Amino acid sequence: MRSETRLALVGGGFIAGAHDAAWRVLPLFFPELPRLRRLVVCEVEEERARQAASRLDFEQSEVGWEKAVRRPDVDLVVIATPPDLHREIALAAIGAGKHVFCEKPLARSAGEAEEMCRAAEKAGVVHVVGFNLRKAPALQQAARMIRDGSLGEVLHVSGRYFQDHGRDPSRPASWRYDSARAGSGAIGDLGSHLLDLAGALAGEITSVVAVARTVYGERGSGEKTVRSDVDDCAAWLARFDSGSTGTFEVSRLAAGRRNQLAIEVNGRKGSIAFDWERSNELRHFSPDDPADRQGFRTILIGPANPGYVSAIPIAGIGVGFLETMVAQAADLVKTISGAPVDSPLPTFRDGWRNCRLINAILESSQRGSWVDVAKT
Amino acid sequence: MRSETRLALVGGGFIAGAHDAAWRVLPLFFPELPRLRRLVVCEVEEERARQAASRLDFEQSEVGWEKAVRRPDVDLVVIATPPDLHREIALAAIGAGKHVFCEKPLARSAGEAEEMCRAAEKAGVVHVVGFNLRKAPALQQAARMIRDGSLGEVLHVSGRYFQDHGRDPSRPASWRYDSARAGSGAIGDLGSHLLDLAGALAGEITSVVAVARTVYGERGSGEKTVRSDVDDCAAWLARFDSGSTGTFEVSRLAAGRRNQLAIEVNGRKGSIAFDWERSNELRHFSPDDPADRQGFRTILIGPANPGYVSAIPIAGIGVGFLETMVAQAADLVKTISGAPVDSPLPTFRDGWRNCRLINAILESSQRGSWVDVAKT
Amino acid sequence: MRSETRLALVGGGFIAGAHDAAWRVLPLFFPELPRLRRLVVCEVEEERARQAASRLDFEQSEVGWEKAVRRPDVDLVVIATPPDLHREIALAAIGAGKHVFCEKPLARSAGEAEEMCRAAEKAGVVHVVGFNLRKAPALQQAARMIRDGSLGEVLHVSGRYFQDHGRDPSRPASWRYDSARAGSGAIGDLGSHLLDLAGALAGEITSVVAVARTVYGERGSGEKTVRSDVDDCAAWLARFDSGSTGTFEVSRLAAGRRNQLAIEVNGRKGSIAFDWERSNELRHFSPDDPADRQGFRTILIGPANPGYVSAIPIAGIGVGFLETMVAQAADLVKTISGAPVDSPLPTFRDGWRNCRLINAILESSQRGSWVDVAKT
Amino acid sequence: MRSETRLALVGGGFIAGAHDAAWRVLPLFFPELPRLRRLVVCEVEEERARQAASRLDFEQSEVGWEKAVRRPDVDLVVIATPPDLHREIALAAIGAGKHVFCEKPLARSAGEAEEMCRAAEKAGVVHVVGFNLRKAPALQQAARMIRDGSLGEVLHVSGRYFQDHGRDPSRPASWRYDSARAGSGAIGDLGSHLLDLAGALAGEITSVVAVARTVYGERGSGEKTVRSDVDDCAAWLARFDSGSTGTFEVSRLAAGRRNQLAIEVNGRKGSIAFDWERSNELRHFSPDDPADRQGFRTILIGPANPGYVSAIPIAGIGVGFLETMVAQAADLVKTISGAPVDSPLPTFRDGWRNCRLINAILESSQRGSWVDVAKT
Repeated sequence: MRSETRLALVGGGFIAGAHDAAWRVLPLFFPELPRLRRLVVCEVEEERARQAASRLDFEQSEVGWEKAVRRPDVDLVVIATPPDLHREIALAAIGAGKHVFCEKPLARSAGEAEEMCRAAEKAGVVHVVGFNLRKAPALQQAARMIRDGSLGEVLHVSGRYFQDHGRDPSRPASWRYDSARAGSGAIGDLGSHLLDLAGALAGEITSVVAVARTVYGERGSGEKTVRSDVDDCAAWLARFDSGSTGTFEVSRLAAGRRNQLAIEVNGRKGSIAFDWERSNELRHFSPDDPADRQGFRTILIGPANPGYVSAIPIAGIGVGFLETMVAQAADLVKTISGAPVDSPLPTFRDGWRNCRLINAILESSQRGSWVDVAKT
Repeated sequence: MRSETRLALVGGGFIAGAHDAAWRVLPLFFPELPRLRRLVVCEVEEERARQAASRLDFEQSEVGWEKAVRRPDVDLVVIATPPDLHREIALAAIGAGKHVFCEKPLARSAGEAEEMCRAAEKAGVVHVVGFNLRKAPALQQAARMIRDGSLGEVLHVSGRYFQDHGRDPSRPASWRYDSARAGSGAIGDLGSHLLDLAGALAGEITSVVAVARTVYGERGSGEKTVRSDVDDCAAWLARFDSGSTGTFEVSRLAAGRRNQLAIEVNGRKGSIAFDWERSNELRHFSPDDPADRQGFRTILIGPANPGYVSAIPIAGIGVGFLETMVAQAADLVKTISGAPVDSPLPTFRDGWRNCRLINAILESSQRGSWVDVAKT
Repeated sequence: MRSETRLALVGGGFIAGAHDAAWRVLPLFFPELPRLRRLVVCEVEEERARQAASRLDFEQSEVGWEKAVRRPDVDLVVIATPPDLHREIALAAIGAGKHVFCEKPLARSAGEAEEMCRAAEKAGVVHVVGFNLRKAPALQQAARMIRDGSLGEVLHVSGRYFQDHGRDPSRPASWRYDSARAGSGAIGDLGSHLLDLAGALAGEITSVVAVARTVYGERGSGEKTVRSDVDDCAAWLARFDSGSTGTFEVSRLAAGRRNQLAIEVNGRKGSIAFDWERSNELRHFSPDDPADRQGFRTILIGPANPGYVSAIPIAGIGVGFLETMVAQAADLVKTISGAPVDSPLPTFRDGWRNCRLINAILESSQRGSWVDVAKT
Repeated sequence: MRSETRLALVGGGFIAGAHDAAWRVLPLFFPELPRLRRLVVCEVEEERARQAASRLDFEQSEVGWEKAVRRPDVDLVVIATPPDLHREIALAAIGAGKHVFCEKPLARSAGEAEEMCRAAEKAGVVHVVGFNLRKAPALQQAARMIRDGSLGEVLHVSGRYFQDHGRDPSRPASWRYDSARAGSGAIGDLGSHLLDLAGALAGEITSVVAVARTVYGERGSGEKTVRSDVDDCAAWLARFDSGSTGTFEVSRLAAGRRNQLAIEVNGRKGSIAFDWERSNELRHFSPDDPADRQGFRTILIGPANPGYVSAIPIAGIGVGFLETMVAQAADLVKTISGAPVDSPLPTFRDGWRNCRLINAILESSQRGSWVDVAKT
C-alpha cells in the first residue's frame, strides 16, 4: 500500500470546498489510511488559482488543468468543474494513467459518459463518480435492510428531490441554467442523485416516461438577463427490471423545500422512508411488530449504523453533508490502495448508466412517450 | 324551505354507518337546517335490511331498492353500494324526481357516469358525489389560500394515496378486487379522491400517462381463493390546463401507510402540504416571512379555519373523518333546501369528469402512452 | 338490564354539546347497549333552557336543577356546570339515589370532593368524573403497554398541557379566571387531566413541589375588565409511590400550543410518548428491536388498538375528541347496567384524589415547599 | 494580530477528537483567521500520548500536563479532561499567562469554578468554557429572535436533555458515574448545557427546587462492578430574575432518547422550540401571522441564519455537532486575536455561575427545598 495518494484538484468552487473539508478530517476519522496529499489545484486564471491553493491548503496551484492532470507526481485527479469539462479532463487524466474522481452528473450526455467509462475501464484506473449522498449512513442502513430481505420484494419506489433556489428568476443565473454547460437542469443536477439512489436501493430502471418544464426562460435582471434552456422541474415514471415501478419528481422551484431529497421504498413486507432534510433519520416499517404496536419507527442514525462518521459515539449528535464527503473520500482512498470497502463506490459505469437514464428522461419529455433506457 | 328532507339509503355497509353517524349529529352542529329524516334503508335481504334499520335508526327498511327510491315520501336517495349498482339506482331515483347523493367513484366507467350526469342535470334534481375528503377543513383552508393567491400560479402538484390493507393476499377478497363490480382497484378507490382534490386545488387535468400493476392476481385462501383483476398500485403523470404538472401514486400495498392521502402544491410563491394521517394539520410555506425565519408552518386546524366542525371551540382538539361527513351532509341539506354553501359540493358532472380521468389513466396504463382526457 | 337510562343534564355549555354529540352516535357504535334517553336539560333561565333542549334534542327542559335531579323518572344526572355548582348538584342527585357523572375537576377543593365521594359511595350509586381524555385509544394503548411490562418499571414521567387561549388578556374573561367559581386556573382545568393520566399510567403521586403564576391579574377590556386571581401557568415536580419522579407544566399562555397535552413515560426498558395535538398517534420505543434499527415508532391508532371507535375500520382515518366522549359514554352506560368494561371509569374517589393533588400543588406554590398529598 | 495561536491540548479522549476535527477545517471556513497551530498534546502515559499526537496531528506529545501548559511557546491551553483535573490544570495555565479553554462543566463544584474564574480574570487571559451547543445556528437564531422582541417577554422555559446510554447498568462505568471525578451525573453532564442555554435565552435563574435520583447504585458486571454515586436522572423548577419560570429535566436513562436536548421558550407574543435531535431546525410561532394560517413554522437552518457553517450555501444540507465546534473554535481564535465576535463566548464567569446553579440543584435535591442560587 502506497503511503500517500497525491491529488490534483480541478475546480475551486463550493463543491471543491466540501471535498477539501472532508480531506482535512479524513486522517482523524480513518487514521489507518494512506495519506491524501493535496498537491495541486487548478483554476482558470492565476489569481483564482492562488486563492484556491491558499483556501484549500494545496501545496501548489496551476492555471488550467492540462498539465496538472498529467504530472508524474499526481496519482488521483478530482474533477470538480461544471459538466461541460468533465469528459475532456477525465480523458486526459485517464490517458496519463491517473485515478479519476468526477463530480456528478458524470457528463452532459450518455455519449460523453460512455467515452469516459470505456477509457477508464480500458486503462484500469480507479474511476469514481461523486454520488456522495448514497454514503449517508441512513441510506446505507436502508440498502442493508433491502439486501437482507427486511422489506421483501420491492413493489414501488417514490423519489423526490425538491429545492427552491431557482424560484426567483431575477437572481443571476449560473452555468446550472445553461444546457450547453450543464447538460440539463434539475434532472441532471438533482435527478441524477435520485436515480443513483433508486438504482442502489431497487435495481435497474428499464424504461421511463417523463414530463419536464422550463418555467423561467430568462434569468437574471437588467443587462445581466440571460436565456435559460434547462428544465426547472420534471417528473417521471419508471419501470424497473424487477417489475417494480417508480415515481420521481425534481424541482428547483418548490417553495420552502430547501433540500428535500425524499425517497421511499415499499416492499411486499416492509417499507423505508428517508428525507435529506432530516438526514440523521431513517423511517422503517416492519411487519414483524405486533399488530397493536406497528408503525414507522424513526431510526436515529448513530454508531450502530454502517458508515457512521463522528467523533462523538452516540446517535442524534448531528452529522450531515460533510460526513458523507468524508465517507466517500475514505472509500476512494481505500479503493485506490486496494483495501476492501463495505460497499463499492459508484464507478464511471454507474455514472454512464445514470447519464443514459437522464438521456431517456429528456428524450421522453420531448417525444411524449415511454422510452427504453439504452443498454450498454 | 321544507321542514325536513326524507331519506332513502341504499346499502348498509361501513360507509353507510359513517353517513349515519354524521346524520345523527347534524342537528346539533347545524341546528338551523331542515331535519334530515331517516325514512327507509334498503338491503339485499330481509334480515340485513331489518338489522340496518335498527343499527342506523331508520324508520323503515326494504328488501331491494327499486321501490324505495321511487316512494313519493322520499326526497333524497343516498347510494352507498359498490359501484356496479350506482348507475341503475341513480337513474331510477332521478327518474322519480329524487335528489341523489352517490358514493365515489360515481360509476365503474365514464360512460355510466355520463348517463347519470345527463339524467340528473336534465331532471333538475340535486346530484352530489361523495368526495367527502375535500370537506376536511385543512383542505378547505388550502383551497382558500390557492384562491386568494397566497401560493401564486401553481407549478406542480404531488399526490399520493397509500394504504396497506391489501398487502396480505391471503385475506378474503371483497368486491373491491373485482373490476366487474368496482370498475378498477386503487385507481378508482383511492385515486378518485386524489383526482378530485387535485381538481379542486389546481384545476383541470388534460392528459395523463400511467403505469398500473396487479401484484396479486389471486386473493383469499383455500377454497375461497378468487381471481383479482384490479390494479393494486398505480402511478401517473398529469398535465393541467394551466400548464402545471402533476405526479400521483396510489397503492393498497404500501406497508405501514394506513391512510396516507398526501397532497402538496407548489406555486410560484408559496406551497402547501397535507397528509390525511395528520388531518388536523396543514403545512404552509409563505415567501413573505423574513429570510431568517422562513419555513413550513404547521397550521393546527381550528375555529379560525373554514368548515371546522366541533363542539369544542379550540384548535388541536382532534377532528377527523366523521366531521367531514357532517360537513358534507350539512352542505347537502343546504343545497337541497336552497341555502347558500361556502363552496359547492361536487356534482355528478364532477363525478363524471373524475371517471373520465380514471378511464384515461386505465387506458394509458394499458396502451403505454399519454392519453388525453375526454372532453364532454 | 334496564332497557333505557333516563338522563338529566345540568348545564348547556360547550362541554354539554360534546356529550350530546356522543350520546347521539352511541347507539350506532354500541348497538347492544341500553338506550340513553335524553329526558331533561336544566339551564339557569327559561329561554336558555328551551334553546338547550332544542339544540341538544332533549325531551324536556327545566329552569334550575333542583327539581330535575330528583325526578323519579331520572336515572342519571350529568353535571356539566362550572365547578362551583358540582358539590351541591351532586349531593342532591346522590341523595335522590341517582347515578352521577360530573365534569372535571370534580370540585373546587379536596374538601368538596371528599363530601361528594363519601356520599356517592355510601349511596351505592354509580359515580364517574369526566376525565374523557384517558379514553383516547392511544392512551389506552399506552396503559396496556405499561401494564404488560413493555416499558419495565417506570422511571420518570413528563407531562405538559399547554394551551394559548388565555394569551390575550383583553378578551372577555369567563368563569375560568375566577377562583371562586373554578377553584383554580390552568392547574385545575388542564392539570387535572395530566394528573389523571399520570395516575393511570404511573401510579400514585405522594408529594409535589410547585410554582404557579398569575401573569394577567386583570382580564377583559374597558368596563368589562375584571380581576383574575387564578394561575395562568404552573409547573410542579412529583414523587410517585413507586419511586419514580415526574415533571409537569401547564399553561394557558403558551403561544402556538393550541391543545398540547403531551405525556411521556420512560421505563427501565422502553418509552412511550403522546401529544394530543396528534391524538391518533402513540410513539413507542422498544428495546427489543435490533440495535441498528431501534427508534421511536409512531403507532397510528386503529382497529388493532383498544377502545378505537370509528365507522371506518382502518387506522389513520382520523378520530378525535368526540370519539373519546363516545367511549366514555359507552362505559358509563355499561357501568350503570352492570356490564363489564375494559378498564374502569374514573370514580369520584379518583376525582377526590385528583382534587387532593390540585390542593397540594396550590399549597406548595403558596408555601414554596414540598407538600405531601393528603391521604384519605 | 499574531499570525498563529500555539495550542497545548490536555486529554486525548473523544471530545478532544471533536475539537481536533474542528481545528482541521477551521482555516477552510475562516481563512482570514490566525492559524491555530496544534503544538503539543498531553496524555497520562507515553504510548497514549504518542498515539494522540499521531491521531490528532499534533507536532509533539508529552506525558502529563504540568510542563506543557507552562511552555513559553504555548499560547492557548485546551482542557479536555474529566472535571476533577480542570481546576489544577487551569490554574497552572493561567499562572503561566496562557489563554485557557476548558470543557464543561467548568469544575466539580462552584468553589473550584470560582477559583478558576478569579484567577483567569485577574490574569487577564482569555478564558472560555466549552458550551459549544449554544453555537448551533438554530439556537443563535433563537437568541436573536428573543433579543429582537419577536417573542415578547419570556413567560416560561422548558428544557430537557435526555439520553439513554446509561440505561444498561451492566456496561462498564466510566468516570462519568463517579462523583469524585465528575462532580455530579446527568445534572453536570447534560444539565450544564441546559442551564447555559436557558441563561443565554431567558436570563438569570435565581432559585431552584430539584429532585434527583441514582437509579443504578452499581454499574459494570462481575469483577468490574463499581459503585455509582451520581444522579442518573433529575428534574428541577426554576425562577428567573425576570419573573419567568422554568421546568427542566435530565436523564441518562430515557430509553430511545439518544440526544434529546429540547428547549422551548414561550413569550407573551411568540414561542420557539428546538430539539438537538433535529438540530437543523428551529420551530417558531409568530402571533403576527393571520389567524387562519398561524402555526409553528419549521425554520430549516441555512445561510440566512447567524453562525451557519457549511461549504454548501443552501439550507437543509445537514450540519451538526462538528459545525458547532468549528464555530466555537473560530470565536475562540477571534477572541484571542482581538477580533470582534457576533456574540461573546461563555467565559469562566459563565462557567462559575453554571456551577453555582448545579450546586443549588444538588443541594435542593438533598435538602428537599427551594434553594437560592448563590450570588458572586
